[in-house]
Amino acid sequence: MNIAVIGATGYGGVELVRFLQHHPHVRSCSLYSSSQDGIDLSESFPHVGEIEGAILRKIDVEQMANEHEIVFFATPPGVSSSLAPALVDKGVKVIDLSGDFRLKDRSVYETWYKRQTASDHYLQQAVYGLTEWNKEKIENAQLLSNPGCYPTATLLGLAPLVKEGLIEEDSIIVDAKSGVSGAGRKASLNTHFSEINENVKIYKVNSHQHIPEIEQMLKTWNERIQSITFSTHLIPMTRGIMATIYAKAKKELTIETLHDLYKTSYKDSRFVRIRKPGQFPATKEVYGSNYCDIGVAYDERTGRVTVVSVIDNLVKGAAGQAIQNLNVMMGWEEESGLTLGPIYP
Amino acid sequence: MNIAVIGATGYGGVELVRFLQHHPHVRSCSLYSSSQDGIDLSESFPHVGEIEGAILRKIDVEQMANEHEIVFFATPPGVSSSLAPALVDKGVKVIDLSGDFRLKDRSVYETWYKRQTASDHYLQQAVYGLTEWNKEKIENAQLLSNPGCYPTATLLGLAPLVKEGLIEEDSIIVDAKSGVSGAGRKASLNTHFSEINENVKIYKVNSHQHIPEIEQMLKTWNERIQSITFSTHLIPMTRGIMATIYAKAKKELTIETLHDLYKTSYKDSRFVRIRKPGQFPATKEVYGSNYCDIGVAYDERTGRVTVVSVIDNLVKGAAGQAIQNLNVMMGWEEESGLTLGPIYP
Amino acid sequence: MNIAVIGATGYGGVELVRFLQHHPHVRSCSLYSSSQDGIDLSESFPHVGEIEGAILRKIDVEQMANEHEIVFFATPPGVSSSLAPALVDKGVKVIDLSGDFRLKDRSVYETWYKRQTASDHYLQQAVYGLTEWNKEKIENAQLLSNPGCYPTATLLGLAPLVKEGLIEEDSIIVDAKSGVSGAGRKASLNTHFSEINENVKIYKVNSHQHIPEIEQMLKTWNERIQSITFSTHLIPMTRGIMATIYAKAKKELTIETLHDLYKTSYKDSRFVRIRKPGQFPATKEVYGSNYCDIGVAYDERTGRVTVVSVIDNLVKGAAGQAIQNLNVMMGWEEESGLTLGPIYP
Amino acid sequence: MNIAVIGATGYGGVELVRFLQHHPHVRSCSLYSSSQDGIDLSESFPHVGEIEGAILRKIDVEQMANEHEIVFFATPPGVSSSLAPALVDKGVKVIDLSGDFRLKDRSVYETWYKRQTASDHYLQQAVYGLTEWNKEKIENAQLLSNPGCYPTATLLGLAPLVKEGLIEEDSIIVDAKSGVSGAGRKASLNTHFSEINENVKIYKVNSHQHIPEIEQMLKTWNERIQSITFSTHLIPMTRGIMATIYAKAKKELTIETLHDLYKTSYKDSRFVRIRKPGQFPATKEVYGSNYCDIGVAYDERTGRVTVVSVIDNLVKGAAGQAIQNLNVMMGWEEESGLTLGPIYP
Repeated sequence: MNIAVIGATGYGGVELVRFLQHHPHVRSCSLYSSSQDGIDLSESFPHVGEIEGAILRKIDVEQMANEHEIVFFATPPGVSSSLAPALVDKGVKVIDLSGDFRLKDRSVYETWYKRQTASDHYLQQAVYGLTEWNKEKIENAQLLSNPGCYPTATLLGLAPLVKEGLIEEDSIIVDAKSGVSGAGRKASLNTHFSEINENVKIYKVNSHQHIPEIEQMLKTWNERIQSITFSTHLIPMTRGIMATIYAKAKKELTIETLHDLYKTSYKDSRFVRIRKPGQFPATKEVYGSNYCDIGVAYDERTGRVTVVSVIDNLVKGAAGQAIQNLNVMMGWEEESGLTLGPIYP
Repeated sequence: MNIAVIGATGYGGVELVRFLQHHPHVRSCSLYSSSQDGIDLSESFPHVGEIEGAILRKIDVEQMANEHEIVFFATPPGVSSSLAPALVDKGVKVIDLSGDFRLKDRSVYETWYKRQTASDHYLQQAVYGLTEWNKEKIENAQLLSNPGCYPTATLLGLAPLVKEGLIEEDSIIVDAKSGVSGAGRKASLNTHFSEINENVKIYKVNSHQHIPEIEQMLKTWNERIQSITFSTHLIPMTRGIMATIYAKAKKELTIETLHDLYKTSYKDSRFVRIRKPGQFPATKEVYGSNYCDIGVAYDERTGRVTVVSVIDNLVKGAAGQAIQNLNVMMGWEEESGLTLGPIYP
Repeated sequence: MNIAVIGATGYGGVELVRFLQHHPHVRSCSLYSSSQDGIDLSESFPHVGEIEGAILRKIDVEQMANEHEIVFFATPPGVSSSLAPALVDKGVKVIDLSGDFRLKDRSVYETWYKRQTASDHYLQQAVYGLTEWNKEKIENAQLLSNPGCYPTATLLGLAPLVKEGLIEEDSIIVDAKSGVSGAGRKASLNTHFSEINENVKIYKVNSHQHIPEIEQMLKTWNERIQSITFSTHLIPMTRGIMATIYAKAKKELTIETLHDLYKTSYKDSRFVRIRKPGQFPATKEVYGSNYCDIGVAYDERTGRVTVVSVIDNLVKGAAGQAIQNLNVMMGWEEESGLTLGPIYP
Repeated sequence: MNIAVIGATGYGGVELVRFLQHHPHVRSCSLYSSSQDGIDLSESFPHVGEIEGAILRKIDVEQMANEHEIVFFATPPGVSSSLAPALVDKGVKVIDLSGDFRLKDRSVYETWYKRQTASDHYLQQAVYGLTEWNKEKIENAQLLSNPGCYPTATLLGLAPLVKEGLIEEDSIIVDAKSGVSGAGRKASLNTHFSEINENVKIYKVNSHQHIPEIEQMLKTWNERIQSITFSTHLIPMTRGIMATIYAKAKKELTIETLHDLYKTSYKDSRFVRIRKPGQFPATKEVYGSNYCDIGVAYDERTGRVTVVSVIDNLVKGAAGQAIQNLNVMMGWEEESGLTLGPIYP
């Protein structure tokens, strides 16, 4: 299996490299960069050390199509929508970690991203890679659109409630907290250490581009859902997302039924772990791993359900889920290359 | 003015010392400790250096009543409810930073705190020190109950909406994030550095003792409010609380009317600052100061209001507001001793 | 007293504003910025809120000379050396927080800074503002060169040993650790949160521009000192410098004589606090304050002295010491505007 | 291979579990705890999830000797010295991560640890597991004493210089910085989040128990070394140690010869990586991995060598090196179970 990673000098890309280096079914991996070709990856990321194929290559679609069966994009907005179609047309399987192919409706994309994306043809062809809930389509995907980090934590947390129709469709509020690595490696005042450390910030209030991505999937599960409230906060840590989800139960629940529902929903999902009643996951408990850990509560006083869903934004929220999707697409064990547990503390 | 601080070896107590040392109307300040009497405060907190009155004294109510006109309690649960009544009976003014006198209904206290508190007589006498909204009563208070950190941020954020009746009374959800200093100085696994750093945790889901405190005040403002959903998260930082507040508007609003309402509501409040439309405060922007900074948003898609309210939990959420209340009780300028701005970065 | 601050949108500049706003002898303060003139300071730093004179003004030397008696420079390399001479020539007192006037020998400046600086005339005129050890000259200074953050911590730590000739002159090693705010507010990969958090880095090994500044002062104290080893490390925190200083004693010492020497040396220095034998300061114990805290040890096994010196790099290492120098230059109480203690925790 | 871990509820123990779970030659692993037997490990560490053998067992030396071929101790001082001898006598191989067997001279142990340890017989039998420099003895070890975290970073950094006799024997100064996880999981004021965050502390000045451990090994390499100066600092991060090492060169060196020496010394060491001249490692570049990364510098001005050596204190400084030693003792590939790279960022 010859694999290519475009955008290896970003955090998502170098995390892909970490997993691909030790993947049992991956023989070789070529790294591409638009800005740093010719450079050894370890110049940019000394932690990788001396590895095979570390010299960053120049992007050349024609030649990539000849050489690779799989191409990962871990690139900023606009890159995959311009390069992936040609690869797809040549029969290459593409796994895109960016948002370019996530929204089926181009006008919705343009509204929220304030830019254009690929043509309808490819948007429709793209399969949304929320592995736990879309496995059949993923098995046959040629163009895989890997979910965003916030949508992954949120959708895995909401799926059982929404699919079972247990909550008021207009009552969903998601308060998400994220580590800073989700903002990527590009330096800016917003990610400057002295501005982030010992600080909590809210950002993109009611305007985060992951809102339509979440709503799109929720609607396929339950068409009565129109819109959700979704807020994002920057936390002074590097990795981890916690989505705290609130919704009004349609009728009285018990914590036992709620817990059972989640255990049952994810009984075959190796990477989703449900906490016991009364217990809730912390982000560090999934650090570096592909797990999504979930805890649930029901408050009799208010009739509300609280779901706490945590992931490592760079793993289950990016590179890890991309590998999980690779495994499903290739018919390998879903956990290949992803077996290591969280690092704690 | 001779002042006493009981519990000077905790974070709230030493923060009181910081403000009292430079308060223009305070002549002397005696420090008391139940566990460390005879010790110099700088043994426990080297940062204070050599100050007058640094030797911690043994608690003796009789003698304190003779010597001090004001006594602050910055003590764990149960201390002030057992010691303050005798001081009050002797005519001393008491400002209590603990939760012992915050709830008017003893049975509610017992339900949420899982312990007993003072007798009804004193609970009824106690004045709740949310300075901005209770100034007249505070002026005449002899027993002042200083609000909790979360209630301060939450209530200042909700007051204009609730008093104006603009939101559905059963729609209030508060997602609060706090630095770790709120948990005090006592070492525990929950506040162990390696467990908190690079981590976000939710705790006391639907059972935090500040819930009835918030609800009690909201009900005095709007009797149709029954209960709220309130969640607390530990953030890897020392100081700061952000309360992100969600509620459903009764009718369509605009950001302008919302912003005007807040500006008007707090136009005479020196310590509440309202951000411009589209801007939101971060916790670091009030670090070390007595400010509560607030930003508001209205989402047309969902009809929900979002209020973001931040404080320094040890200042406006504890010692600073206690000094503010002292000033009001004594008829001094409300900002005496509290004029210094936030430290940034 | 009409004061101007050039470079108010940097961390050093905004820290000057914090102190000047509450300085008892300062009537008004104008803020200047080369890049953001016309903007309100609170646009860039919301924490300052609405203050008088917040609109950033355009730099105009002529007009500044007419309007201000004192001008602070909190600017990047090269600014003050080009602007300050004209102000000085017009009789304005200048306090420069940058390194432009710190080295007396232009060729040394060029070697370490890799750029040019002011002419000899002004370099010789500039008075080095290590307040505790240069007070007489500072009293009469017109052009004051405020010390660097590392030199301040290091020189205050070394002065008693070096002046007394107690240590081998070629044995001095300084291992310094600094928070990230010392690198300023300009975003870069080196100050990107995800690169700094949970990380320690060494930088500018044997080539930091503060080395000649330290050596220059040491030589005026003891001409046998030629060179020192000085290393700088970035620590995942915002404020604070610790200089751990090692040197070989010329003859056997005791901790008592060492401690006495430091107590005596700094007995009149309000901002230097010496820890008891066996105790050492932590950076947080001076956070936000103008203190330099020092602890000393002598190891009989190796015959080496260890000195631990901590400051807040933005206060005693920059804006605070600049205010202290202002006070000395103007004949005010040395501690005017600097009385508040550290914020802890 | 049946393996036991005593002390699985500490940070070192749970890190052993992380590596042993995925070790290709380890079939099963039993976990023992003196304080929490009967409990599932995931109660204490939810991140491990549901694993085989998670129920903590009661320590019973007799039965352990029957069941296990290898026993790891990841225990506080005093435990292994009391339990390991009986296991050793029964032919079990023991790998001890505590300091009980590290010092050959009991009186030195008692001086620095202020307590007693095992008898001479076992101290002499114990093999010091600094894998890179003691492999032949480790191959035949029955009782292996795993090095301390600071000694590992320091000794790997000093070995080439000391063995080649390039530095003045009395000139070695080590300034070490460590994350807080090295202090273990037991809560204390010294590891309380609010005391550590945004802070740097020095501790155990000239009295750290790792000093004699480092000196003991240095003396076996170069008998003229008598004593070193070694300081330890707590840094606000969880994992990572940086040892910044200073020493006087006996004669002039060049960076090229220095770099070559290190490259040559470690050319067969899979886990030691030498940075190019002019480049230095940061602690995060080895996070979660068994690497020790080293950079070197020579300063012509002072004639001093600076060596920067970084490890993850819980991996190469504890559990990882213990696994590496297990591999050598069993004749397996040295890197078995340790192949995964650092997690970055």
